[in-house]
Amino acid sequence: MSTDAPERRTYSYLGPAGTFTEAALAQVPEARGQIWKAVSNVGQALDDVVTGRSDAAMIAIENSVEGGVSSAQDALSTIPGLRIVGEYLVPVRFSLVAPRGTALADVVARDLVAVAGHPVAYAQCLTWLGETIPHHEHVVASSNVASALGMLDGSLPAQVAIVAPGVAEHYDVEVLAENIGDNQNAVTRFVLVTGTVAPAAPTGADKTSLVAELPKDEPGALLELLEQFSTRGINLSLLESRPIGDALGRYRFVIDADGHVFDERVADALMGVRRFSPNVVFLGSYPRADRQVVHYPHRYGDEAFVEARDWLRALVAGEPGA
Amino acid sequence: MSTDAPERRTYSYLGPAGTFTEAALAQVPEARGQIWKAVSNVGQALDDVVTGRSDAAMIAIENSVEGGVSSAQDALSTIPGLRIVGEYLVPVRFSLVAPRGTALADVVARDLVAVAGHPVAYAQCLTWLGETIPHHEHVVASSNVASALGMLDGSLPAQVAIVAPGVAEHYDVEVLAENIGDNQNAVTRFVLVTGTVAPAAPTGADKTSLVAELPKDEPGALLELLEQFSTRGINLSLLESRPIGDALGRYRFVIDADGHVFDERVADALMGVRRFSPNVVFLGSYPRADRQVVHYPHRYGDEAFVEARDWLRALVAGEPGA
Amino acid sequence: MSTDAPERRTYSYLGPAGTFTEAALAQVPEARGQIWKAVSNVGQALDDVVTGRSDAAMIAIENSVEGGVSSAQDALSTIPGLRIVGEYLVPVRFSLVAPRGTALADVVARDLVAVAGHPVAYAQCLTWLGETIPHHEHVVASSNVASALGMLDGSLPAQVAIVAPGVAEHYDVEVLAENIGDNQNAVTRFVLVTGTVAPAAPTGADKTSLVAELPKDEPGALLELLEQFSTRGINLSLLESRPIGDALGRYRFVIDADGHVFDERVADALMGVRRFSPNVVFLGSYPRADRQVVHYPHRYGDEAFVEARDWLRALVAGEPGA
Amino acid sequence: MSTDAPERRTYSYLGPAGTFTEAALAQVPEARGQIWKAVSNVGQALDDVVTGRSDAAMIAIENSVEGGVSSAQDALSTIPGLRIVGEYLVPVRFSLVAPRGTALADVVARDLVAVAGHPVAYAQCLTWLGETIPHHEHVVASSNVASALGMLDGSLPAQVAIVAPGVAEHYDVEVLAENIGDNQNAVTRFVLVTGTVAPAAPTGADKTSLVAELPKDEPGALLELLEQFSTRGINLSLLESRPIGDALGRYRFVIDADGHVFDERVADALMGVRRFSPNVVFLGSYPRADRQVVHYPHRYGDEAFVEARDWLRALVAGEPGA
Repeated sequence: MSTDAPERRTYSYLGPAGTFTEAALAQVPEARGQIWKAVSNVGQALDDVVTGRSDAAMIAIENSVEGGVSSAQDALSTIPGLRIVGEYLVPVRFSLVAPRGTALADVVARDLVAVAGHPVAYAQCLTWLGETIPHHEHVVASSNVASALGMLDGSLPAQVAIVAPGVAEHYDVEVLAENIGDNQNAVTRFVLVTGTVAPAAPTGADKTSLVAELPKDEPGALLELLEQFSTRGINLSLLESRPIGDALGRYRFVIDADGHVFDERVADALMGVRRFSPNVVFLGSYPRADRQVVHYPHRYGDEAFVEARDWLRALVAGEPGA
Repeated sequence: MSTDAPERRTYSYLGPAGTFTEAALAQVPEARGQIWKAVSNVGQALDDVVTGRSDAAMIAIENSVEGGVSSAQDALSTIPGLRIVGEYLVPVRFSLVAPRGTALADVVARDLVAVAGHPVAYAQCLTWLGETIPHHEHVVASSNVASALGMLDGSLPAQVAIVAPGVAEHYDVEVLAENIGDNQNAVTRFVLVTGTVAPAAPTGADKTSLVAELPKDEPGALLELLEQFSTRGINLSLLESRPIGDALGRYRFVIDADGHVFDERVADALMGVRRFSPNVVFLGSYPRADRQVVHYPHRYGDEAFVEARDWLRALVAGEPGA
Repeated sequence: MSTDAPERRTYSYLGPAGTFTEAALAQVPEARGQIWKAVSNVGQALDDVVTGRSDAAMIAIENSVEGGVSSAQDALSTIPGLRIVGEYLVPVRFSLVAPRGTALADVVARDLVAVAGHPVAYAQCLTWLGETIPHHEHVVASSNVASALGMLDGSLPAQVAIVAPGVAEHYDVEVLAENIGDNQNAVTRFVLVTGTVAPAAPTGADKTSLVAELPKDEPGALLELLEQFSTRGINLSLLESRPIGDALGRYRFVIDADGHVFDERVADALMGVRRFSPNVVFLGSYPRADRQVVHYPHRYGDEAFVEARDWLRALVAGEPGA
Repeated sequence: MSTDAPERRTYSYLGPAGTFTEAALAQVPEARGQIWKAVSNVGQALDDVVTGRSDAAMIAIENSVEGGVSSAQDALSTIPGLRIVGEYLVPVRFSLVAPRGTALADVVARDLVAVAGHPVAYAQCLTWLGETIPHHEHVVASSNVASALGMLDGSLPAQVAIVAPGVAEHYDVEVLAENIGDNQNAVTRFVLVTGTVAPAAPTGADKTSLVAELPKDEPGALLELLEQFSTRGINLSLLESRPIGDALGRYRFVIDADGHVFDERVADALMGVRRFSPNVVFLGSYPRADRQVVHYPHRYGDEAFVEARDWLRALVAGEPGA
């Protein structure tokens, strides 16, 4: 027994094993061999990070079929001491499973087939179900894993279950069909959240997340917020208004901007937002999941910022030629 | 038996009886005495409208604890032939219920209390539960109604259930505590959706919903979209980017604008958006739930638009004094 | 004597014969064979039009070496009943002239050469004079014609005169050198002004002139004015702030916009400006002097405006498919 | 003879004595007792500064009745090594003068009165002349001083002359009437120009002048330039497009912005313009002639910039609480 063994890190995620969130966590190389802690909602996952029970939490932030995106955004907006350090995309694919030994033909042959499924998942598989098992009824399950568990343990009166693909790896089920969702391109976006840390070095394909309140509820305020980015040549990939909640008609905006806070133009824009907004939260700069290199007008490169500072310094000093 | 009896209208909503969505529907005077059809997800509700099985559907559109907001927005963006005709706000309040005859003291006296609840609802009641019933465990339910039903019929191993307030009116339960949620101001916004109809007359306190794609993925495009509103003195109360889904990095924006399409400035802005955007969907003009009268700069009143048209007509005609 | 003879039209211009303004008037085909009335300043020329003494006036509007541009802009901004109907460019070229029979060599051979010239013209010929006649002194003349006239009649003690090229055609002078100005690309822009008339049909290479006051003196007001053009894809070729004169810090803007008021996007922008500005003056739509075809984004073509109106009409009517 | 005598400074101005430009120079306390060098045009005045023949030059920059504003702006835009250090306003008032011993009644009694005057001045006095001396003719003079000199020495065949008020102090004339111009509020704006120096300390009532080219000729470029100011809460008091002259359709903008380059928001905006514009010339920060204190939104004060930098530094460092 060695005390030299490095301490293992703990990652919280929306469990149980088999969820799309677990699939996102599986994309994190540093998480391999560490402790994975399944929790039942986003609030618990973030609370684990804030209190130090976990080192990081994987949460869905956009387009989730496992819910909680709004509350995730609101939590990141209001809970201090959090930082996004990575972004992960998981294709939203569904499989149909049954107890071991069942064939799809057996299922189709029944007069009526009871299909266990989370309502969102069920709705996304209606085309396939309508064509393949038109004589079915829906049995509501609370998640894309619980559908299979309930079918297996009998707590859900169903012969088959709609599940996330990861379920087949963790539980003893027969996969009857894969990729039965209507939208073949559906993707859920996840972020890995830690406590406050310095941003990792830029990769050239980064994004920066922040949340900013508008100073007042009038037509020009939102434009002025967005100009902080456009006047520095920065593209936004996410923009969402969220009601602040303290009063009707007051909004904060959740923003993903192309680039890294170590890029001069992003740092400059962040300072502009800070001056403009009564409340701004920096959520982090981190590599984009799609690894797409960020393009921007040449005149907004770091050199342009350095050159402009030198120019200003010279003219303030009254140097000849300035 | 008279064939003169007016045909009853059908309203689809996320059921069963007792949900927050049903509470929203209860706010619609025209829906009283009509057929209320409980469905299990937003997709079914909208499909009922499109196919004519229902005359209208009530769906959550913002800040819902019953889920489906993103898919509701996406469905409204992509399914043709829908129109929003009304907006309704329902306070998000939770009650704790138990089988008839149970007292809160009985529950608290137990060594361990199993609490049935939808995960989102459970997360929002953690403060109250932590103080009042610290020795509890969570039993996941699929909705804010299923929690009570499962507790009553024994399919969920729980002594108490977190429910929407409407549950107490529909099912035989004992209300142990009301208003146990952390956020006393939480509100879900619902909209009533019909097939394509002409907008109802303006009330002076209206909003207009639309969805617009950006013409290209570059910094200035979003600003140019928003200027269509700001240059006509129109405030936005909702702005959300939604991935279009056909390719990474392409976005549509879901927009709620103050005012009614019968207001000259709103009609003018809509035409501006139509010219600018490769794809724009008008979702409707309808009374605001908060009944707040829309304020706008005097220079954007209807008279200003009429006067400007007269002015243009005169100067094009070369009339003296123009 | 025939009463059938068409009445001749009268054109006022800054005289006398030989000025750059006369050269601009010579570019107007319709003015040939009509009455050309030389006046001594822009105010007189415009007053002739307003009172009906003349049918049109040719005035310098930009970059003039004959002065009066600011007062021309201010006059167009404040005198009602005027309309620009044409634009003309005249290269600013200067010639050196002397009494008949003089050779340049004779002049250069003198110990000291007195050069009559308008101060602006003189300043623009300094390089040539410094190289060719370094031993010269300047005799101030009141115009680019008066320099020659004074030299000829002895009222100016000068051996040579700097003149506009047109002078050589009208007066009995010897041209010693042509094109002696420093800037070979200098051009003055003139406009032909009539009383209020309907604009002529678009040519595809038109511009539209207007003057607009800002509603208030704050950062955003000018941007909002300019957005009226940019949100309709309209480029501006002239933008000048002019103090209104009634109080310090209040400005009007003189604007030349690409396109014709018969273009939907320009008409729409003009109405937008009319609603926005407390005072806007339409000065006319007329062919560009450079005949450059106006380019604009496809989405701002007339069809886009017609289509947007049809779309709005259909959705207001509640038509299916709208 | 003492070598201790401080060297006297030389100020160039548009002469001769008596011009409005001299009246502007008379407002400069530091110029008293120094050498005043009368020159005949703006180009000479600025050349004196560039070559070191003069320490400073006073030139008209806006709304001048002595001409040369466009060429002054162009010269400041293109000649390197110049800096504006002060701004002065001179009311544009005209007097009518005659040879000593003449009374207005004598003049009015004549059958025909020849009035010497610069054309611009003459045009601005037409109302008064029309009412008081309707039986007059205009004799063109080359300046508001030359009118009187020509009348006195007989080179202009005139009985009276329209002059700048300063003329009466310098020449032996009888003032028949004062303040005979139509516009009682007319004011010319002058600037005092030196070689490159460090800006003087801010007074709280300052303006900053610059000239910037647009990066390309398209609708959004001007807006993006102006946003550099509006997004920092900076008001513009002058904005003029000037053709660059190298090609048709290319423009530079002459800008006066409220505030001083030592104000954080102005420095930040200047750097923004520098990054954006292919060519920007800083002309100086100097006290406003009207001494009006510059107002700006609180959120654009120096503290906001300092605070934003501190905030950025902390979050880049990953400090807790950032």
